[in-house]
Amino acid sequence: MLHILVLGAAAGGGFPQWNSNDAIARRARAGDPDLPLRTQSSIAVSADGRRWVLFNASPDLRQQINDRRQLQPAPDAALRASPIAAVVLTNADVDHVTGLLNLRESQAFALYAHSRVLGVLAANSIFNVLNPAFVPRRPLPMDEPLMLMDGSGAPLGLSVRAFPVPGKVALWLEDGNARDFGTAEGDTLGLEIAGADGRSFFYIPACAAMTAELAARLQDASLVFFDGTLWRDDEMIAAGVGTKTGRRMGHMSCDGAGGSIAALADLNIARKIFIHINNTNPLFIAGSPERARARQAGWEIAEDGLEVAL
Amino acid sequence: MLHILVLGAAAGGGFPQWNSNDAIARRARAGDPDLPLRTQSSIAVSADGRRWVLFNASPDLRQQINDRRQLQPAPDAALRASPIAAVVLTNADVDHVTGLLNLRESQAFALYAHSRVLGVLAANSIFNVLNPAFVPRRPLPMDEPLMLMDGSGAPLGLSVRAFPVPGKVALWLEDGNARDFGTAEGDTLGLEIAGADGRSFFYIPACAAMTAELAARLQDASLVFFDGTLWRDDEMIAAGVGTKTGRRMGHMSCDGAGGSIAALADLNIARKIFIHINNTNPLFIAGSPERARARQAGWEIAEDGLEVAL
Repeated sequence: MLHILVLGAAAGGGFPQWNSNDAIARRARAGDPDLPLRTQSSIAVSADGRRWVLFNASPDLRQQINDRRQLQPAPDAALRASPIAAVVLTNADVDHVTGLLNLRESQAFALYAHSRVLGVLAANSIFNVLNPAFVPRRPLPMDEPLMLMDGSGAPLGLSVRAFPVPGKVALWLEDGNARDFGTAEGDTLGLEIAGADGRSFFYIPACAAMTAELAARLQDASLVFFDGTLWRDDEMIAAGVGTKTGRRMGHMSCDGAGGSIAALADLNIARKIFIHINNTNPLFIAGSPERARARQAGWEIAEDGLEVAL
Repeated sequence: MLHILVLGAAAGGGFPQWNSNDAIARRARAGDPDLPLRTQSSIAVSADGRRWVLFNASPDLRQQINDRRQLQPAPDAALRASPIAAVVLTNADVDHVTGLLNLRESQAFALYAHSRVLGVLAANSIFNVLNPAFVPRRPLPMDEPLMLMDGSGAPLGLSVRAFPVPGKVALWLEDGNARDFGTAEGDTLGLEIAGADGRSFFYIPACAAMTAELAARLQDASLVFFDGTLWRDDEMIAAGVGTKTGRRMGHMSCDGAGGSIAALADLNIARKIFIHINNTNPLFIAGSPERARARQAGWEIAEDGLEVAL
């Protein structure tokens, strides 16, 4: 069985974002029960319920560990211990790599990412807090199943098949003079995560467009976590809080003709869950018409702490 | 008047540390009221109660902003706004710079640090999430009062005098082949922070040793926040959770002949507060004999959320 735990449901900045001052952010800070706080997106997966693999490491990771007993040392473990056995990165976004800086103190785990992302981490010496004697960095092959191992090479009962999806290089790595800001294949990955019994699901927290190839992969899937960044492509501009469209940020929207609800509608997916939801997306508001429409179209909305068994 | 707000009292890793599994950490996670959770060390200071300067930016900054209304946008501010007008760094420790990665989204503020630390940030491209069009980086001169300004150059009613103290280069920048791991003057700063009326206090979250020069500075101070990392130099080794002494990490201990309690005892300081307290330090335990001894010696123990008016 696969144990899946949503650590955070929100896109970069979390909900509310530190500098958000719209009515929704103010209601959330005031404790409105329709608007619980959300941390930044990440899930944890375990085959045995004891050793966990993080998919992305959000800036909120220390809080997420404090909030989730599954990520805390077992009572019978050593004086310094962690059930976090590996971390797999889907890209180099700040909201996906910053949490690595919490995992210091010479604790062993394995770090997996595309070689481009590993190159970015190597070029930023601050990630040297992850002592290389304890934290091996392993490249993710493309479109091949890879058995995940912990820091010392013991198998974790999980395999991952990583594949490139349409996307964009991380904001902090954009090259304004290059085509597509210097984006290359491997900058944004989707993952198919499988247990020993072959049951699998997809984790795709960022995706700029549906392709025939991606649709074919997702056809008949048991479970898909999918990019829920924006409801509408221009919602940040319409709200007066940003200048970028979703497309410019490397995210397809939920709604509309080219959106994810339409794109995944006919793929016979048993369970579809939006994750990586931006603070401007009305999906976060209990009772919003957009949330009702998404649910009517067969989608769930990830929440911090959601547990799924597969 | 100076408004001082303790955002976090704990040293790197916070309390409990993510991989701590000793009895104290387990009690803290179980909600023992004698052992509240603490976030990583940082203080915020304001002259007007509206615009705040952060002293260090901890990995827990997003949580600290969620927890402290003072750091949340004012109701009458713009749709994207923050009362955080500047950040001053005392060194390049991961627990002092990581929080900068939360302050993205093109929000204006000023960043102050020693030129060596600014060099380290410049060499780590991940800090480019702080858009240079909005976040000027300004070197701190040594031993000269500097009026702090916000991102657009407006004075904040606060001045800072930075001075080097005995210390060590950040762990992730250590050079194993160099003397003192490559530490140079400016890697660890103490700060004297003053309001417009000249009232001032000291913020020294890391200090490896008391010198005659430092003692002379602190003489007759109104308030000193001081490095409370370890109670005893060998406490991490004695507890079986580490291999380093406090001295090796660049911190003088609280207790003992060369400790801070003894070193500051005769300096006529009106108020002394330990901050940057490691998870192994018994000062964190309500009712511990060490805490009683520190208090008897005239010390307070910083707590998350402590407010001081000066």
